Amino acid sequence: MSHNSYGHMFRVTTWGESHGPEIGCVIDGCPPRIEISEAEIQAELDRRRPGQSRYTTQRREPDKVKILSGVFREHDDGPLLTTGTPLALKIENVDRRSKDYAEIAETYRPGHADIVYDMKYGIRDHRGGGRSSARETAMRVAAGAVARKIVPGLVVRGALIQIGDIAVDRSRWQWEELDRNPFFCPDAITVAKWADRLDEVRKNGSSLGAVVEVIADGVPAGLGAPVYGKLDADIAAALMSINAAKAVEIGAGFAAAALTGEENADEIRIEDGRPHFLSNNAGGILGGISTGQQIVARFAVKPTSSILTPRRTIDRAGREVDIVTKGRHDPCVGIRAVPIGEAMLACVLADHYLRHRGQTGGA
Amino acid sequence: MSHNSYGHMFRVTTWGESHGPEIGCVIDGCPPRIEISEAEIQAELDRRRPGQSRYTTQRREPDKVKILSGVFREHDDGPLLTTGTPLALKIENVDRRSKDYAEIAETYRPGHADIVYDMKYGIRDHRGGGRSSARETAMRVAAGAVARKIVPGLVVRGALIQIGDIAVDRSRWQWEELDRNPFFCPDAITVAKWADRLDEVRKNGSSLGAVVEVIADGVPAGLGAPVYGKLDADIAAALMSINAAKAVEIGAGFAAAALTGEENADEIRIEDGRPHFLSNNAGGILGGISTGQQIVARFAVKPTSSILTPRRTIDRAGREVDIVTKGRHDPCVGIRAVPIGEAMLACVLADHYLRHRGQTGGA
Amino acid sequence: MSHNSYGHMFRVTTWGESHGPEIGCVIDGCPPRIEISEAEIQAELDRRRPGQSRYTTQRREPDKVKILSGVFREHDDGPLLTTGTPLALKIENVDRRSKDYAEIAETYRPGHADIVYDMKYGIRDHRGGGRSSARETAMRVAAGAVARKIVPGLVVRGALIQIGDIAVDRSRWQWEELDRNPFFCPDAITVAKWADRLDEVRKNGSSLGAVVEVIADGVPAGLGAPVYGKLDADIAAALMSINAAKAVEIGAGFAAAALTGEENADEIRIEDGRPHFLSNNAGGILGGISTGQQIVARFAVKPTSSILTPRRTIDRAGREVDIVTKGRHDPCVGIRAVPIGEAMLACVLADHYLRHRGQTGGA
Amino acid sequence: MSHNSYGHMFRVTTWGESHGPEIGCVIDGCPPRIEISEAEIQAELDRRRPGQSRYTTQRREPDKVKILSGVFREHDDGPLLTTGTPLALKIENVDRRSKDYAEIAETYRPGHADIVYDMKYGIRDHRGGGRSSARETAMRVAAGAVARKIVPGLVVRGALIQIGDIAVDRSRWQWEELDRNPFFCPDAITVAKWADRLDEVRKNGSSLGAVVEVIADGVPAGLGAPVYGKLDADIAAALMSINAAKAVEIGAGFAAAALTGEENADEIRIEDGRPHFLSNNAGGILGGISTGQQIVARFAVKPTSSILTPRRTIDRAGREVDIVTKGRHDPCVGIRAVPIGEAMLACVLADHYLRHRGQTGGA
Repeated sequence: MSHNSYGHMFRVTTWGESHGPEIGCVIDGCPPRIEISEAEIQAELDRRRPGQSRYTTQRREPDKVKILSGVFREHDDGPLLTTGTPLALKIENVDRRSKDYAEIAETYRPGHADIVYDMKYGIRDHRGGGRSSARETAMRVAAGAVARKIVPGLVVRGALIQIGDIAVDRSRWQWEELDRNPFFCPDAITVAKWADRLDEVRKNGSSLGAVVEVIADGVPAGLGAPVYGKLDADIAAALMSINAAKAVEIGAGFAAAALTGEENADEIRIEDGRPHFLSNNAGGILGGISTGQQIVARFAVKPTSSILTPRRTIDRAGREVDIVTKGRHDPCVGIRAVPIGEAMLACVLADHYLRHRGQTGGA
Repeated sequence: MSHNSYGHMFRVTTWGESHGPEIGCVIDGCPPRIEISEAEIQAELDRRRPGQSRYTTQRREPDKVKILSGVFREHDDGPLLTTGTPLALKIENVDRRSKDYAEIAETYRPGHADIVYDMKYGIRDHRGGGRSSARETAMRVAAGAVARKIVPGLVVRGALIQIGDIAVDRSRWQWEELDRNPFFCPDAITVAKWADRLDEVRKNGSSLGAVVEVIADGVPAGLGAPVYGKLDADIAAALMSINAAKAVEIGAGFAAAALTGEENADEIRIEDGRPHFLSNNAGGILGGISTGQQIVARFAVKPTSSILTPRRTIDRAGREVDIVTKGRHDPCVGIRAVPIGEAMLACVLADHYLRHRGQTGGA
Repeated sequence: MSHNSYGHMFRVTTWGESHGPEIGCVIDGCPPRIEISEAEIQAELDRRRPGQSRYTTQRREPDKVKILSGVFREHDDGPLLTTGTPLALKIENVDRRSKDYAEIAETYRPGHADIVYDMKYGIRDHRGGGRSSARETAMRVAAGAVARKIVPGLVVRGALIQIGDIAVDRSRWQWEELDRNPFFCPDAITVAKWADRLDEVRKNGSSLGAVVEVIADGVPAGLGAPVYGKLDADIAAALMSINAAKAVEIGAGFAAAALTGEENADEIRIEDGRPHFLSNNAGGILGGISTGQQIVARFAVKPTSSILTPRRTIDRAGREVDIVTKGRHDPCVGIRAVPIGEAMLACVLADHYLRHRGQTGGA
Repeated sequence: MSHNSYGHMFRVTTWGESHGPEIGCVIDGCPPRIEISEAEIQAELDRRRPGQSRYTTQRREPDKVKILSGVFREHDDGPLLTTGTPLALKIENVDRRSKDYAEIAETYRPGHADIVYDMKYGIRDHRGGGRSSARETAMRVAAGAVARKIVPGLVVRGALIQIGDIAVDRSRWQWEELDRNPFFCPDAITVAKWADRLDEVRKNGSSLGAVVEVIADGVPAGLGAPVYGKLDADIAAALMSINAAKAVEIGAGFAAAALTGEENADEIRIEDGRPHFLSNNAGGILGGISTGQQIVARFAVKPTSSILTPRRTIDRAGREVDIVTKGRHDPCVGIRAVPIGEAMLACVLADHYLRHRGQTGGA
């Protein structure tokens, strides 16, 4: 991953600031003749869109995506097909209230990227967080919508499994439940607890962290490029690059440290003439290569740094001050991180699918 | 990270199999006039070398490194200096007992990369695990020894903080303790517990996972290339690419999910005229850019898959069989993962130091 | 150079088709605090703009560039400065007459990329040549306008030195002459000859090739990354990637083959305390590294393939047909290739300037 | 191409100096199950080996190549097969007479890379030219030997077509002739002229430039990644990266500038049900994509800079001096550039073959 591009063969480059006129991305290396429509991409964007419940930022962005290049309709009533040339996507920024951010022009929010952008670049577009804003992740979701179509049969799904210290009960996991609550929560009983906890947190001008789980089904065995382009290494980078992410794990993850060799290693039998693993502590990846099992990854996001509780900080002039961050912020950025995590996983898989096909001819 | 190369400007490419004649690496993009000696690299390799206690593999490899190119001595009694051209390093493989591995030629060890190399490439050098062997990590440590010299003032250290379910007591952390025990353990009291637990595990023909912590001091603020080449994203990939790694976290990591915004965000004051953070939940990285604080990362490694306990598996012909893995294996690969983790962190920092200097002129 | 991106540290990605709604580019890795304005970029685009004389295509494109991201005005009356984040530029396509191209939807123009896009991708946006159109080069010129500002003191200029078999007389070279004729011709006496020859060619429905020379002054010594990222290798790729380019040379170029060692090697003396070369057969590059002299490169462009003279070809159905290409085409694409060649040279130099600074600290 | 690596998917990294202990390369991304032997690689190296006639350097290097990794013999009497992991190759430097180079330690040879390595890196391994020596090209030839096996049916051949101002007569071109003379000359009658001219030049302590032509048959249509990874752009970079190269052309090359549109564009008919071009001014590449025709490229190499004729130069201390370069040098480096040019072309084609297969699935 280099600066603002992700991937080797399925290569996504994003651009744009929170309060600029537009944000966009370019997808280079996309295979030709993939059917794609603005509606499909829009459907994914709508899942991430802010302002859909009281638990996410109240910024009202329609997030209407446009495809600007890289597609062609061969027949008037035929589908839009990728041409193999760069796909450019864009979204106009509509609801920009830059004046809300007058204070943060001069004062660094603790826990936020404000100070390091100044340290690194000696200049910073503070409006709405500029480039470091979660607004950028809209383009990840858009690119992910295309990525989902590259690997035949691939299904990538995600869920929120923890807010603050309240985790879902995995025995009650129902994928259908996700559409019925504003949290991408797979466990109906946890929904109410989260709602209560977040209402309380919002009232207190505070925020909470969360854990997201993303799962890919239909991943062919053999994807991954050891020893540095391992599939899990690339997934780790992709998920860790999401705003506020602080941790990533694959399969059993940190819990694997406490297992014995017998407990951890997934035994193998034959089923329907093919290798069948009796468990999935590996999370679908061994030696950096997909096993053909479900790929399972999790990442933790820290609580939003933009809170109403006063915090000690400094300003650009080096004075010690206190800050209270107004503006419109998510009390738990983890919620909207679910479709973003899915998108990043889809991008990694699309990229490795093409790389594997390039090197070996198969997939 | 692409296949067998790591880094953009400080670019390390490794090659070699466990039982081939040699293993090696090429470091491209190294700055010129860096003083380097085989002895310095050797010192790092000696920390990772197998066979130093009964808790690591009994393979006896002297791991003597040779520098083959990229250095020049300007005066007969002057130091060896890098020239800016590729540094090639190599180690001869001495203690190869390939016959120990006759069985695994045909049978896949559960939890090991055997099966996926066959799935991906349709061919596999099974001797000692071939390319997927931890033997490759010797070259990571060698490259890391060079990387440590790129960022002026950088100090990278690591420690083992958990074996199985026994974690160190951080309040007893003493860096000096590391040299006094075979575990890179910073807590003297935990040493005995680990020794007992590992002796028991070895007796049972089992193995245990572990957690490693790596810490960098002296990292200048401003390193990192958001939004996809974020410093933490690259660290995550680098650590996850280490054999057996299943999880990575930065700073508060997964624990950040359970914190509130006030608890998590590190407040800022001025000390000695410079920004001073009052805590380090960020692990030294905000928005993918180093803050100038200590960088703190952790990774979990799963228990060794090569164990004496019989496990159910299949062979290359698709027959269901049981396997008992003999040969010489680490009961806890986490121990030797400490210098490897340090090396990977040093490589990431060296690479980003050069990238940052390239883009901004500073560092 | 990978697919639609150029450069390592100063990385330009272009997108867009001839008859799509917009074309654009993203410049990633640009140093921060570079002063840049739409007007400056526009000035370069205006030099390349079609329809400025009867010797270039009559397509009327205002080519108004917009900067969408990556810049910030710190003070209301201050300059626009780059922020170190991706610069996105775009131009709207205004004058699209896709119906002119109905015939080439089904029939391949000999000498044109039509047939190979179908061979490669199995699909092709034929409208105006789609992605293979010279329209794409507008974004090269835009990116080049930014690149020109990266290396302090850099001046990149170009001239047309040959149309058909009529070459300029180098002894009459006057840079001032370029603004007085529609050919970027540095030799006043040649202008009339070219005008006559091109009028004749246009009348005959034919076209002519040309040779462009690009020159960079103010290039610091030391740029280039041997042995595969040599400065001349990257210049060769950059110039050869321009539409219709078939040849590239540096310094004495092909003529060097006929020189003896004594004639070719540029002798060195000291002038003003610095190395001074007595000639420049090297074109400013030795061993792939800039010498500090003027960099001199030339490239040949073939005659436009879209001509009115009937040519034998085939159609998509595999039928043998004749084709006459109507539409609006340049009788000599070499003319507008001058600012494009300059832009590509500027991009290569900007990229190597940052790479060199990254590796060595200097520049 | 980045520093010392070439290619994206078939990625070659070379290392080593002229007078170091060894030189080597790593080939990453090679497809698995490609049959390869040291003998095959050796056969290519033997074509480039110095000291085979009085027209090349008298350095006596056996150039015995060893494969160190990335291959496996599945059965005792089976072939050596690539495994998909990095191939490492090495050659020991045997005939090092570094004392011959005492003078050039302190004095810069005009036309040579000596001075710029010092300018760039502030340090230089002067022995035998260090990294800038043509010795490095041995590894290009070795890598090329592997590359030749990637594209099924590919045949890459080269010939010397000009020494000094004496060009071959293309009407007398006989591929068989190449093995009968020490010049890779395809025209028997030119051989004697070149021999006389080079004998004279050697006697005078001078040297001559040359032009090499490389040709690839069996290249599938569709290779190339426009608009920046165009096949011809990558070929141009690859050939220009060869020591002493100053110019590159494809197909009609510079001559295309003097052609009209009708003359230049290769007309198309159907033959055996497939597109058939009636000429090949394109050199097998249109719009940066292979057409399925023969690929034809040429490059010029300047005369050797290491000559016995005294030349004016400076030394490291900035004193103006004269230099006479002793040591063992080729009077015409163009001769040995023939197998090197072939190797580079083969590497480009292998890389694009895999990239094309990755993106589109076909090839």
